[in-house]
Amino acid sequence: MSILAVGTVAFDSIETPFGQAKRVLGGSASYLTLAARYFCPDVRLVGVVGGDFPDSYRQVLADGGVDLEGLVVREDEKTFFWHGRYHYDLNERDTLDTQLNVLQDFEAKIPPSYQDSEIVCLGNLDPKIQRDVLAQIDDPDYVICDTMNFWIENTPDSLRETLRRVDCLVINDAEARELAGEPNLVRAASIIRDMGPKTLIIKKGEHGALLFHGERVFSAPAFPLEDIQDPTGAGDAFAGGLAGHLTREGTFDEDALRRSIIFGSTLASFAVEAFGPDRLTNLTATSITERARAFKELAAIPKLMPVTAA
Amino acid sequence: MSILAVGTVAFDSIETPFGQAKRVLGGSASYLTLAARYFCPDVRLVGVVGGDFPDSYRQVLADGGVDLEGLVVREDEKTFFWHGRYHYDLNERDTLDTQLNVLQDFEAKIPPSYQDSEIVCLGNLDPKIQRDVLAQIDDPDYVICDTMNFWIENTPDSLRETLRRVDCLVINDAEARELAGEPNLVRAASIIRDMGPKTLIIKKGEHGALLFHGERVFSAPAFPLEDIQDPTGAGDAFAGGLAGHLTREGTFDEDALRRSIIFGSTLASFAVEAFGPDRLTNLTATSITERARAFKELAAIPKLMPVTAA
Repeated sequence: MSILAVGTVAFDSIETPFGQAKRVLGGSASYLTLAARYFCPDVRLVGVVGGDFPDSYRQVLADGGVDLEGLVVREDEKTFFWHGRYHYDLNERDTLDTQLNVLQDFEAKIPPSYQDSEIVCLGNLDPKIQRDVLAQIDDPDYVICDTMNFWIENTPDSLRETLRRVDCLVINDAEARELAGEPNLVRAASIIRDMGPKTLIIKKGEHGALLFHGERVFSAPAFPLEDIQDPTGAGDAFAGGLAGHLTREGTFDEDALRRSIIFGSTLASFAVEAFGPDRLTNLTATSITERARAFKELAAIPKLMPVTAA
Repeated sequence: MSILAVGTVAFDSIETPFGQAKRVLGGSASYLTLAARYFCPDVRLVGVVGGDFPDSYRQVLADGGVDLEGLVVREDEKTFFWHGRYHYDLNERDTLDTQLNVLQDFEAKIPPSYQDSEIVCLGNLDPKIQRDVLAQIDDPDYVICDTMNFWIENTPDSLRETLRRVDCLVINDAEARELAGEPNLVRAASIIRDMGPKTLIIKKGEHGALLFHGERVFSAPAFPLEDIQDPTGAGDAFAGGLAGHLTREGTFDEDALRRSIIFGSTLASFAVEAFGPDRLTNLTATSITERARAFKELAAIPKLMPVTAA
């Protein structure tokens, strides 16, 4: 199965209490494809960069086997730039600077060779652009979508229109509460799934993720890491590992989703171990398998005895 | 095995977005014993109340089979009173009033019939009182301890002295970070375990709990509830279910702890379904078993295939 990822390709300047990195390769499409390609040989990227985007960054993606036919270069413009600083506890961050540059009038153009893509990952973009992408794909098997508070607040109707065409929405807990207008996550999930997505995955950062599918809920743990260098891109690496592993499954049922969430969590847990996407460039199949198995150990509940009256 | 719980017995006035309750039965020892007795026929309470403590509340505990020989009544004084209001998202609350009353000069006196107690649960009290309790017990098998930011900040040395004698510390994530002076929970756990407790359980409210024991970590989910009425006492119900189930296990190894955390989480999930301790007064063995099994379903990760190079 093939994966198409539409999203940002960026320069990120990142400060955390453990160091900093200047203008490293960033953006949702970068993290997503670099994670997905560990599971899937056919990962396609759609995005836009400026004339300042260096060959070396292009090469990082190409070396990973990511198909870059859909990466548009606008020679006279500049690449999207984000500058953020994380607080001491890493759950909070401040955006110090955002320069949209080429993203300002981004129109996703899907190359003809991408039109048969089977899993489509819609990165966090204007919901109108997300729909434009879907209109250019021939009947995808599975559509995974991300969004954020900006679109929830500013383009709610357009977002609803996109959500009607989404199979699996992947958002964080604050976004789920805001989108549903409901603080209880179980109720919020029900409200959101009525908007379209049969499947909802709620990312909770250091607390793991929740899957709502059919009548059941799955609670995936986060990996307890002693050394987190940089949380940037963890959510996109999660989505990439999820989508990538779903191509191995070939189906989108409960068990396939549970396993794929564990592999998504695995890729996210690696992503935060180094600045930028560095850690996603040098993983081995063995290290991924071992960590996924560690997740299973982490969550294992031994056989329970029935309770009898005390 | 027997359980001794030392803690508060209180009047709670509670306001949540879903209703309110005035001067209901509260306190850590009440929730803890009412949860523990579903697993253990020999649950003993040590606490103090005033002359205003009604027979009907005493009867709630007695009907649950809780041994009240250690509940001191000071006829001329008033029972500890707490008044709190929860915010819309239930993770935040404001204390509107606290009247220590009889707690002001509380001295834990352990009745001779309690001295052979096997599991001792030290509720959140002055660390000095916690040590005084231990000094009156003949070599307990297992000591479980709670504490809070007040003691971490105001009596750090005394708290350290108590922790040296504790087998299992049960605190929330903010308390763990503060006690260790370290925001990363894995590092914090290691620092805290160096203070004495071989086993550390970190409660994360709606995000479940983490167990640090030996070289391993266990991540227990929280039960996704659609209808939470009142979070008061959830942590104490958790500790009660944990201690209670450990008496069924008879050992304190990794598997026993994992299972007992699931039963602790089960009791906590019931406790929040109604105001005050009401829900803990009418559970059945079957309902407890069924929910514990639902926890197992919630966290189940299907068999994973090894990753091969994509």
